[in-house]
Amino acid sequence: MKENGKISNAVIRRLPRYRRVLKELMKRGIERISSNDLSLLIGYTASQIRQDLNNFGGFGQQGYGYNVEGLYAQIGSILGLDREYKMAIIGSGNLGQAIANYTTYYRAGFVVSAIFDVNPKLIGISINGIEVLDYENLDTFLEENPIDIGIICTTKSSAQDVANRLIKGGVKGIWNFAPVDIEVNDDISVENVHLSDSLNTLAYYISHNQK
Amino acid sequence: MKENGKISNAVIRRLPRYRRVLKELMKRGIERISSNDLSLLIGYTASQIRQDLNNFGGFGQQGYGYNVEGLYAQIGSILGLDREYKMAIIGSGNLGQAIANYTTYYRAGFVVSAIFDVNPKLIGISINGIEVLDYENLDTFLEENPIDIGIICTTKSSAQDVANRLIKGGVKGIWNFAPVDIEVNDDISVENVHLSDSLNTLAYYISHNQK
Repeated sequence: MKENGKISNAVIRRLPRYRRVLKELMKRGIERISSNDLSLLIGYTASQIRQDLNNFGGFGQQGYGYNVEGLYAQIGSILGLDREYKMAIIGSGNLGQAIANYTTYYRAGFVVSAIFDVNPKLIGISINGIEVLDYENLDTFLEENPIDIGIICTTKSSAQDVANRLIKGGVKGIWNFAPVDIEVNDDISVENVHLSDSLNTLAYYISHNQK
Repeated sequence: MKENGKISNAVIRRLPRYRRVLKELMKRGIERISSNDLSLLIGYTASQIRQDLNNFGGFGQQGYGYNVEGLYAQIGSILGLDREYKMAIIGSGNLGQAIANYTTYYRAGFVVSAIFDVNPKLIGISINGIEVLDYENLDTFLEENPIDIGIICTTKSSAQDVANRLIKGGVKGIWNFAPVDIEVNDDISVENVHLSDSLNTLAYYISHNQK
């Protein structure tokens, strides 16, 4: 860890990718890897990799490389993946259902505790064994069941109100799938997945024939 | 447009966001906006905004600001949104279905022409009026129906094979939702939506109590 304990956002955003590649290496029984070989797999330059990983101690040893399992565990710990996160999904349409299913199989540490909707046709149905609850009862639910992450899968127009209620109920982070930038105070973390932005960027690269 | 006609990737990635905010302004009947006011809405500094938009001509006029509608149209045109993209989704699970529904209502320019799956239980069902086809017939389909964008909603282990077949069939761009980095030649564009990376990043910020 750096002296000030703060790792830059750019490095943080690269860590999940390092972790993903390291996991693949573990599966293949590979115990150590050089920054050069890691560069081939991950697409960053070896120098970038050494610089990134130096941020938190630098497991690499000259002539040996990185210990795959050690680095994987270290990155997981830095990312805060050695604890459990309770999550609530707001909006049980296709996207909400997809996210519920995805997170269920993705990792034990991320637990969907509840799904909420306003639509009477959806309230009461079960998604992956989790009953869809009435959004009217969100406040009461949050009082009784502390939630770390609120996942917004609603329309654009509802997203900010939903975020406000989630935060009032003690949620620490928002995973936002609504195509709008929600505003929160500094003590709340927001991670946006803007599908339209991603698709628009792809359209650009296709129409300009660039990678 | 810059002399060499190339806009940096960082700027390209910000353009969809500019476009989103400009669209909101249009809806609110706002015809022009200064870089300072745009900065408040979009979160980038006014100087960053001026620098970004100067990349393609700089519509801004001293004391007038940017013409909202003109800038919106210009960004859309740069992003390649003034044409139609035909898309095929591979994998009709929850995520594939969510993407099919999402893109249908998102924008007329992105048309889901077909959805493919290997699961006999899903082949033949209809999603948003589009029948799920047998993945076995993908090659023939692509020969007869040119597709611009292949959307990969399969498991990690199938993703690379699916990408190879899509590209062989003439697809120009891949929108990849499988949690793996797929390898393609330089003439193919790939845009990844790695949900796990996004969730891991959020976990970091929550556990470190940072934005």
